[in-house]
Amino acid sequence: MVQSLNRRSNDGRGAAARRRRRADARRLGILRAAARVFRDRGFAAAGMRDIATAADLSPGNLYHYFRGKDELLFFCQDRALDRLLVALSVARTGRQPLDARLRALARAHVLCLLDGVEGSAAHLEVHALAPRLRARIIAKRDRYERGVRAIVAAGIRRGELRSTDPTVATRAFLGALNWTAHWFRPEGPETPDRVADLIADYAVAGLARLYA
Amino acid sequence: MVQSLNRRSNDGRGAAARRRRRADARRLGILRAAARVFRDRGFAAAGMRDIATAADLSPGNLYHYFRGKDELLFFCQDRALDRLLVALSVARTGRQPLDARLRALARAHVLCLLDGVEGSAAHLEVHALAPRLRARIIAKRDRYERGVRAIVAAGIRRGELRSTDPTVATRAFLGALNWTAHWFRPEGPETPDRVADLIADYAVAGLARLYA
Repeated sequence: MVQSLNRRSNDGRGAAARRRRRADARRLGILRAAARVFRDRGFAAAGMRDIATAADLSPGNLYHYFRGKDELLFFCQDRALDRLLVALSVARTGRQPLDARLRALARAHVLCLLDGVEGSAAHLEVHALAPRLRARIIAKRDRYERGVRAIVAAGIRRGELRSTDPTVATRAFLGALNWTAHWFRPEGPETPDRVADLIADYAVAGLARLYA
Repeated sequence: MVQSLNRRSNDGRGAAARRRRRADARRLGILRAAARVFRDRGFAAAGMRDIATAADLSPGNLYHYFRGKDELLFFCQDRALDRLLVALSVARTGRQPLDARLRALARAHVLCLLDGVEGSAAHLEVHALAPRLRARIIAKRDRYERGVRAIVAAGIRRGELRSTDPTVATRAFLGALNWTAHWFRPEGPETPDRVADLIADYAVAGLARLYA
């Protein structure tokens, strides 16, 4: 500590940045381990002790980074929704035809769910969060879902998509995507990339006009 | 009690049947209440006490019918899967065109999920069951999913459905259906019947050949 205080301020900033990077990397490792444990055991059955073991940390050390399962889950879900909102904004402002933009959005959504950090069943466990954190996640998720619905509704209005109820169709579209988190296993035969392609094909075909 | 013992045996049988019918009706009422509580609070957060309150029973009386949340959940899921297996067998043996049979199966699947008893998020909480009960539900669910996949795979082989990976496509199809349990609210604007129609349209369109 004394040594670090005696360094030039430039080195001091460098050391702080290194510490921050180390802490961030450690946090990411924990999230990855937690996502694995949630996926294997379900969120309710997973304990902080299991997560510590999976992350190769002592329970005390784990609590230094995250105060509980709740905070871990919030962090995963919040990151996931940030990623989805970026994909939504690309889909909204892109210049490709609607089906290509929806397909790219669907792909990004599935890849986010299958990601070792943000993804996994954790994404689905909104009930498990304490009310205050839950409200923040639900507000963000609603913002995302409203954005997707607006794209679908505009497509239906313009006759680019099959004529149907835009709210229910959007939920079916998101359901085909979200369900992937329930069954995908990283050790299975398919890569996330291939699954994202196939699921996106299906999800967009469900919205498409049947006779082109 | 003495009075009942003094009745003719015919009356005795009638009384036993009446008791059984009353117990069955009570059990059904409990399942309906439990499904409501699971949907509102999530399975993990729901307590037997909440379920007792919703079913208008004392906790002790509730335990007389079901030994715990686990048994309640198993009962719901087992009934739901029996219903799905009946719908599968109809889809397999029917003489209508493939898309009509798949559509009827999708409709039956969604209606089962939205049913006040078998349905609700409870259907999705396989993780929450104790290992022995879980194994029985998973075996039954796998039997159903294998059956749906066999229908889809045959349709792809014969060129009646879009050429794609039958396993992933079946999971996307089931995902669009299953997700309904996550968002549907009985007090919402749509009836289960209309939602089942719209979701079935979407789910079958996702499998259909794009250019007919």
